[in-house]
Amino acid sequence: MSRHRIVALSGGIGGAKLALGLYHALPRHELCVVVNTGDDFEPLGLSVSPDLDTVLYALAGLDNSDTGWGRRDETWTFMRALETLGGETWFQLGDGDLALHVERTRRLKAGEPLSAIVADAARRWGVAASILPMSDDPLRTIVETDEGTLPFQEYFVKRRCTPRVVAVRFTGIEAARPHPEVLAALSDETTEAIVICPSNPYLSIDPILAVPQVRAALAGASAPVIAVAPIVRGRAIKGPTGKIMTELGLPVSAAAVAAHYDGLLDGFVLDRADAALEREIAVPTLVTDTMMHDRDDKVRLAKAVLDFARSLTLADAGRRALP
Amino acid sequence: MSRHRIVALSGGIGGAKLALGLYHALPRHELCVVVNTGDDFEPLGLSVSPDLDTVLYALAGLDNSDTGWGRRDETWTFMRALETLGGETWFQLGDGDLALHVERTRRLKAGEPLSAIVADAARRWGVAASILPMSDDPLRTIVETDEGTLPFQEYFVKRRCTPRVVAVRFTGIEAARPHPEVLAALSDETTEAIVICPSNPYLSIDPILAVPQVRAALAGASAPVIAVAPIVRGRAIKGPTGKIMTELGLPVSAAAVAAHYDGLLDGFVLDRADAALEREIAVPTLVTDTMMHDRDDKVRLAKAVLDFARSLTLADAGRRALP
Repeated sequence: MSRHRIVALSGGIGGAKLALGLYHALPRHELCVVVNTGDDFEPLGLSVSPDLDTVLYALAGLDNSDTGWGRRDETWTFMRALETLGGETWFQLGDGDLALHVERTRRLKAGEPLSAIVADAARRWGVAASILPMSDDPLRTIVETDEGTLPFQEYFVKRRCTPRVVAVRFTGIEAARPHPEVLAALSDETTEAIVICPSNPYLSIDPILAVPQVRAALAGASAPVIAVAPIVRGRAIKGPTGKIMTELGLPVSAAAVAAHYDGLLDGFVLDRADAALEREIAVPTLVTDTMMHDRDDKVRLAKAVLDFARSLTLADAGRRALP
Repeated sequence: MSRHRIVALSGGIGGAKLALGLYHALPRHELCVVVNTGDDFEPLGLSVSPDLDTVLYALAGLDNSDTGWGRRDETWTFMRALETLGGETWFQLGDGDLALHVERTRRLKAGEPLSAIVADAARRWGVAASILPMSDDPLRTIVETDEGTLPFQEYFVKRRCTPRVVAVRFTGIEAARPHPEVLAALSDETTEAIVICPSNPYLSIDPILAVPQVRAALAGASAPVIAVAPIVRGRAIKGPTGKIMTELGLPVSAAAVAAHYDGLLDGFVLDRADAALEREIAVPTLVTDTMMHDRDDKVRLAKAVLDFARSLTLADAGRRALP
């Protein structure tokens, strides 16, 4: 088990952007990305892990920067043929992307853990960071809506997040064991920062925190825990975070996200546009540009977050050194 | 259950050529093609039926006329990505072809019979003929070679037929039930001809005949049974038939193929180049051009075979009418 200096918690697209920034801001093997698997599902009988794959493709340089998901230079012959067969086509699977799903399905059925399959793909694709599912046990995000109970991908992709969210819950929590490397990385005294990426707190980060022992490991970590706001100027950077917050009766504000992580955080990163919110946030705050349009933005934000973590560690050491 | 005038028994590429000729020589719904499933296997955990698919693609006009297998306008992004993942790539699956395999795998697991899945694909792709697996039960062709026991596709594709064949056998025979429509079509008194296509007798037709009741139904059929030679001038038109005949100690000759079907045939179709073999064949023989380079060749041969069947029926009726 390699030692990691930095641990990032990530969902899909938004989280993968900062994970990529961290990957290029550090010696690459020093990064460990813990990824949500609550979105995993089985379209067409294939085991698909959308968030893991987004992070994997991003760090491997295989990602499609136009869409934010799937692979670059993708073809769509499979989907077109499937449509003529009357198959389900609401979840788009590119031809190259399918290779990962078909291999994963075969290897899971043969008894390999998800984490080993991801690690093997990462190794073959030259990714030096660790990419870990939060758990090798199945945990599934379920969205309770005004139109009934929906498995995550039916809510997210098939229904395009249109039903009103009443609650989000997770199945499989009782039996889910955290991946041992996740707990080790969070608890390791040599870990220098734990970064909660700007992913959807309710749909992407909460499933990670719902795995037994993970929240406690985060709360008890010696490394500073820093969350980056996924909300800027009262709007989600991407996806349904804002809509869901409204439906859950929350103000759509970075401050509400900080409050959501209450008890876990040592620091919070706000966009410059939201500097005025600083006084609403109970932990030390870094105000910086958080929008990540290109790779330079991602690396710059990653470095700012790492510097912020270092300053928190020094301040903490300073406080401890007081008589 | 629709009535069929003509029943064809077929393996893959060679058989599909004549099946296509018959399809265009008849009102299309009057053809029933009974296809070998002994080649079926599960590469990458997907249920693949190579001979069924070759016939299906041919009749649907989706076939790749350059290769004889797979689909036209195919892309190969999946295989390229799979290779980077270290997946098994010795059996080439095109991106469009994958749609049929993924859907078949899903539907078989959900409990649908293979024949229903094939019939649905045929219907959606506008194929008016019936394409039937000989059985919905798994029957597998096993090749005993000087290098050990090989499942069919490992012998045929992975090893490119290089090991020396000692024997061919079939697993699953005891439990295999013929598809009821196959038995009905063979036994139906309105059936006008049963055509054994120019497929490999040992690897493609024998598995069909090995299914309980099929050989007896063929032997007892009121329709004339006609085989078209897959050997011309002592060489297989395509594939390893000649090599296998040599290894099994048989002369590589159309006459040996006719002898192989002894007891089943009412007529045999020889290529013009082999006219001299006519005297070695125990049943009435049609000598004609059997090489099928283009669609016209296929339709012309199909019409010649159907005319030959009609002549055999008339001769038989003539003999019965004798005092």
